[in-house]
Amino acid sequence: MTDKKLIGVDLGGTTIKFAILTVKGEIQQKWSIETNILSDGQLIIPDIIDSINHHLKMYSMEADQFVGIGLGSPGTINFKDGTIKGAYNLNWQNSVYPVRDIEKGTGIPVTIENDANVAALGERWMGAGNNADDVVFVTLGTGVGGGIIANGQILHGAGGAAGEIGHVTVDPDGFMCTCGKRGCLETIASATGVVRVARDRASEYAGKSELKATLDDGQDISAKDVFDLAKENDDLAMIVVDYVCESLGFALANIANSLNPKYVIIGGGVSAAGKFLSDKVDAAMRKYEFATIKASTSLKLASLGNEAGVIGAASLIKVD
Amino acid sequence: MTDKKLIGVDLGGTTIKFAILTVKGEIQQKWSIETNILSDGQLIIPDIIDSINHHLKMYSMEADQFVGIGLGSPGTINFKDGTIKGAYNLNWQNSVYPVRDIEKGTGIPVTIENDANVAALGERWMGAGNNADDVVFVTLGTGVGGGIIANGQILHGAGGAAGEIGHVTVDPDGFMCTCGKRGCLETIASATGVVRVARDRASEYAGKSELKATLDDGQDISAKDVFDLAKENDDLAMIVVDYVCESLGFALANIANSLNPKYVIIGGGVSAAGKFLSDKVDAAMRKYEFATIKASTSLKLASLGNEAGVIGAASLIKVD
Repeated sequence: MTDKKLIGVDLGGTTIKFAILTVKGEIQQKWSIETNILSDGQLIIPDIIDSINHHLKMYSMEADQFVGIGLGSPGTINFKDGTIKGAYNLNWQNSVYPVRDIEKGTGIPVTIENDANVAALGERWMGAGNNADDVVFVTLGTGVGGGIIANGQILHGAGGAAGEIGHVTVDPDGFMCTCGKRGCLETIASATGVVRVARDRASEYAGKSELKATLDDGQDISAKDVFDLAKENDDLAMIVVDYVCESLGFALANIANSLNPKYVIIGGGVSAAGKFLSDKVDAAMRKYEFATIKASTSLKLASLGNEAGVIGAASLIKVD
Repeated sequence: MTDKKLIGVDLGGTTIKFAILTVKGEIQQKWSIETNILSDGQLIIPDIIDSINHHLKMYSMEADQFVGIGLGSPGTINFKDGTIKGAYNLNWQNSVYPVRDIEKGTGIPVTIENDANVAALGERWMGAGNNADDVVFVTLGTGVGGGIIANGQILHGAGGAAGEIGHVTVDPDGFMCTCGKRGCLETIASATGVVRVARDRASEYAGKSELKATLDDGQDISAKDVFDLAKENDDLAMIVVDYVCESLGFALANIANSLNPKYVIIGGGVSAAGKFLSDKVDAAMRKYEFATIKASTSLKLASLGNEAGVIGAASLIKVD
């Protein structure tokens, strides 16, 4: 195997994370910079180029010591021409050309991929995915995103939306989603979804609960607060968490029933609730899965945390 | 492209279908024999060998004029050692070795695949699938089966159950399924499922309906009868068909929301109800799909009928 290195770049709305990795996926250096979304985000790509060049100089490394740069980005990626559209959190109004521009600016070949898919690839390669050929990754953050790896390849689908499992319909009579339909997984199992369910259930709850008292008092709560209270057996918080886990289990079980992945991996902020969350989701999944799936598909918590993005981005680079 | 030919074999519980095809998928000859399941099905593989050899002789063809034989079979296929297990409708009690035995008996290389996956590959290659890279195929027969093609490859999953979408849970409080859980798509949208729904709804139905009268009279009905009556606006039949199509639309929309295939294709006996069925399923799907999916995934009726199996089996053969 080559001694050359990989560069993984995880472009987010707040920070841009960088790492230099071996071809085996070990991180040797990492750093990050703020994402400057001023001037329609036109400074972002020059900033990425400058930061890479600056660090290579600092580490006394040359472009030809690298196989490539992998970049995970928000937005819809056009793989043919290497452009990105619709990355609204970066203020990009028009198509941008990261592949062309970063290759030119660094002298290193660039491969790009959607950020949720990159996190999925990272967890698959070096995290909970154990490098399995079939992995479904769901990230429970502000929204619910995901990525599907089947036969060892990330799926894009006909319109680039494969793996966007946040918009699987869980409850046809449920909450309205920003996507325009009702009862999407994202309206329930995202960080904002958990809080929405809490407020909804609180309005009809009459028992004794600290969560209820906090909400009635007009205080802000977070998904973490809800899970923390549920861990302390707060009655309303338990009702909320049970509904969230049941809904998540239903959606993930049906994806598992269709795809029979080796692992379903839960990541993102809400997954910080850990085994308390995954045990409940697992129980719900098993209720809705048929025998072969129960025997061959397992639920796991993501293990890479913040590094999933840079590792997954680096995994995009084809190493001969 | 080579002038050599392909042989597709579709092994079913009642008949074994054979075809000789060009590498472009055109059928040049086809025939079929009865499946002899006596003697624990031990005569099936010898019968396949004899029938191929007999027909090659009849057409004055030699083994070296063929690239390979593709075989679609019920049961669970072990791709490593070329064996099949659990094909209960063929009376096979133990593992059988079709790859080894048919290669030896004909002198032609053999590739095998699950029967539902083979039908999916056939529809994808020469039928409604338009040779797209991402196709979900669902077959509504005695049961509900299916196959998923993603990135141009059939998916097997970790336990070989990828694409078995008949056991997606549609209604957690629904009918008990043979698989042991409740509300599987198969309990509603298979031929037997449609009849089950009809009987269930009839028991609580009080209006005027020929379907109700037929059932109350103790007559047997088929899924086709229910769809035929619904087409004539029979009130109870419409209630049944609406529930079946709504359930199917919900399940298929969520698969589409996860995988974003180019086409979702409905085949099998129940799909003979044609556009009447697919229009209703399409309307339900669109209700449960988010915008990108509505714009890039389309529902279609299967177009190959009985030939999907032999064509899909032939497509298993790698042509250089």
